[in-house]
Amino acid sequence: MAKVEPRILKGFRDYPPELMIPRMRMVREITEVFERFGFAPLDTPAIEYSDVLLGKYGGETDKQVTRFKDQGDRDVTMRFDLTVPLARFMAMNRQLPKPFKRYQVGNVWRGEKPGPGRFREFMQCDADIVGSSSMMCDAECLVMAHTIMKRLGLDAIVQVNNRLIFRGMQQALGIDSDEQMTIVLRILDKYLKIGEKGVREELARDATIDGTRLERICEYLRISGGNEDVLRQMESMLGSAGEGKAGITQLREVFALIAQMDAPASAFQIVPSLVRGADYYTGTIFEIVLPELISFGSMGSGGRYDGLIGMFLNEDVPAIGLSMGIDRTLAALEELKKLPVASSPAKVFVTAFSAEQYAYSIRIATVLRAAAIPTELALDPDAKFKKQMSYASAKGIPLVVIAGPDEAAKNVVTVKDMTAGTQSQHAIDTLAAHIKGALQKTPPEQPSGTSGA
Amino acid sequence: MAKVEPRILKGFRDYPPELMIPRMRMVREITEVFERFGFAPLDTPAIEYSDVLLGKYGGETDKQVTRFKDQGDRDVTMRFDLTVPLARFMAMNRQLPKPFKRYQVGNVWRGEKPGPGRFREFMQCDADIVGSSSMMCDAECLVMAHTIMKRLGLDAIVQVNNRLIFRGMQQALGIDSDEQMTIVLRILDKYLKIGEKGVREELARDATIDGTRLERICEYLRISGGNEDVLRQMESMLGSAGEGKAGITQLREVFALIAQMDAPASAFQIVPSLVRGADYYTGTIFEIVLPELISFGSMGSGGRYDGLIGMFLNEDVPAIGLSMGIDRTLAALEELKKLPVASSPAKVFVTAFSAEQYAYSIRIATVLRAAAIPTELALDPDAKFKKQMSYASAKGIPLVVIAGPDEAAKNVVTVKDMTAGTQSQHAIDTLAAHIKGALQKTPPEQPSGTSGA
Repeated sequence: MAKVEPRILKGFRDYPPELMIPRMRMVREITEVFERFGFAPLDTPAIEYSDVLLGKYGGETDKQVTRFKDQGDRDVTMRFDLTVPLARFMAMNRQLPKPFKRYQVGNVWRGEKPGPGRFREFMQCDADIVGSSSMMCDAECLVMAHTIMKRLGLDAIVQVNNRLIFRGMQQALGIDSDEQMTIVLRILDKYLKIGEKGVREELARDATIDGTRLERICEYLRISGGNEDVLRQMESMLGSAGEGKAGITQLREVFALIAQMDAPASAFQIVPSLVRGADYYTGTIFEIVLPELISFGSMGSGGRYDGLIGMFLNEDVPAIGLSMGIDRTLAALEELKKLPVASSPAKVFVTAFSAEQYAYSIRIATVLRAAAIPTELALDPDAKFKKQMSYASAKGIPLVVIAGPDEAAKNVVTVKDMTAGTQSQHAIDTLAAHIKGALQKTPPEQPSGTSGA
Repeated sequence: MAKVEPRILKGFRDYPPELMIPRMRMVREITEVFERFGFAPLDTPAIEYSDVLLGKYGGETDKQVTRFKDQGDRDVTMRFDLTVPLARFMAMNRQLPKPFKRYQVGNVWRGEKPGPGRFREFMQCDADIVGSSSMMCDAECLVMAHTIMKRLGLDAIVQVNNRLIFRGMQQALGIDSDEQMTIVLRILDKYLKIGEKGVREELARDATIDGTRLERICEYLRISGGNEDVLRQMESMLGSAGEGKAGITQLREVFALIAQMDAPASAFQIVPSLVRGADYYTGTIFEIVLPELISFGSMGSGGRYDGLIGMFLNEDVPAIGLSMGIDRTLAALEELKKLPVASSPAKVFVTAFSAEQYAYSIRIATVLRAAAIPTELALDPDAKFKKQMSYASAKGIPLVVIAGPDEAAKNVVTVKDMTAGTQSQHAIDTLAAHIKGALQKTPPEQPSGTSGA
């Protein structure tokens, strides 16, 4: 065989253990919160008929997807999100009891130009409620967002708004053209980045908004204060009728529900300029940000989109979702030094002293594994001790068990704490309990924020 | 927009919650055992350069893969196993400390003709040790196979053999042609299915084996008894030299190590006719079978393959792996009625009595969620009680909490056990503890074999 050069496609990457361990832990934490709120797992194929995945979008999205002819000459596309497949699934399973609360964790593929932090294959982690207009759905999504961040040891703010407010603004300003309003929204969304001056310029130049209208929009953007304050100011601007009023009522209801759910009010903030890009949002919208790392963008986001799920049925089906940004949140944890480094899930490495003593090492590893402690055992009983120690160290395994003939004669082992550098002897009977205690004291793989340390 | 017909590609399927819940639980159990043995998670891209994935195989495999030109006109292929990507990863990361113990759970894609139980997208769940020839690797893989099945509530037998034994047989019989021996092996592997008569016929017809050779092969296949018995009979047939002898020594060593690992000897059985298809195995080979469901085939399998991982480096790198058959094992659990049905991970459904009482329901759900109990809350406070009950019942949620004004006045709730049909009242303070206790008594989502029930 001619030698093949081992290489990887641009825009794709391997996840070696040191990346996979925190990533899997994060997925586990997130899905555990999803399940706590009663969301059930769903999976759909990686590949679907192109007209099914692209029907609604065409144009823009079309160029960014991985689309090809399969073995049977069918026009197929790799999924580029988890929402269109959910819509397709709902259409094919109309008998499902509603509300249908599902979460899905899976890779999606986009043909975007790869760059730093931009990949052609990346993981999405979504939770959605389909089939209920109750504001409790919105409240659950917001509280879940907060709960997840807290569990990951991150102090996040969930920024909230409602798209109906902008419909009310359009009415109040008498902007007849939806196209013009779309441009306005795209500009407003940049408010926190480019400030009032930037917004003024762009509104005048790109959206031909001027005079009183411009002033009123800027007045709206300047609204700030506590959430109830903000709502009152919005109310006085938009009047007490129409969709704007409905949006304010919805926000008020959502915040009242959140207050009943033991979530700190300070973690949820109404942000008048929050628009969110996608056109399909119809009500509540939100983004999770870290005040200490604003430049990282949002750690997750979502909103109510009552028009999308029913696309295959040509009817409206109420729906709201939360999408967690796994990779961005991992990057934030790393930046904040809350991401411990280990390339093994093992908490203990059991060394081998010699071929003669190997049975004793095997016994120790067996005892620890039976106690559900992830344990790596030296596989080569003849390997040099120093080599075994540097192997355990290279993998970031926090505890090492040393078991020579002296220890075996007394039915004890020596446990070395690789971080503290300390050693202690323990009887085999009490070893597992000691190790569990030691791991709890300095949980080497928990983000520090979750352990109270 | 013209209406798009929602449909799914042939050979692909959705995993609705009732399939995903047991599947995810199984993956969790398996990976938990992998981690207990010190294996670390790895992930690799779904798509790779075709020459990288297909280089070694070409021909046969080539037709069964999903291969296409990507946006950049690159010749790419979707991964069809997790072993070739591991070999590519090892070649690109030569600095990794050895032994490298990784597990990988991920979908693979094959262009096979779809049929009952045969899909073009399916999940693989592999654990491999790269870089060690120690028989302890083989022992760990075998014990993991047994531990996993036990945790899933299945009484499995791990059938074991060693490919060196067949090399010894080839030497002992003086079969010069490797091609002829390959045909012999393919026939021997069918021994348990077609019996001695079938093997005799095929050996004579397809492998042109007759006379003394045929008799000696049949004598070999008839070897049975306890493992040490079997080893002694193999020994006397193959003599005390060459690769056959080495295979017997390896088997003996592996079984001695297993005996030190608290694994019941009866769960591991040397089966002389076990060959396993793939050509790349070089030593220990094994298959996990269920004596009560032999027709289901193997629940998992693996072996030592010292020639594959180094394919990109053109050198031998020792390696051994275990691959769990997720879907087949799920089917076996279903057949044995050990697969409880639920379409929600929620253990409790909290009903809503009325809009006025809704705050009380929210409070209950919040308390349960804070206690890590997966809880679904009625999202519409005005929904009819009967509708709420049938929703909880349709989803297989085992406990329902009822909280009306009478209950609220006394700070209690009524808990209904949906399986037993019984009801009891509990104070909010002790509710979570009661529910945890009730769930432990009849764990509704545990395979019965693991709970002792």
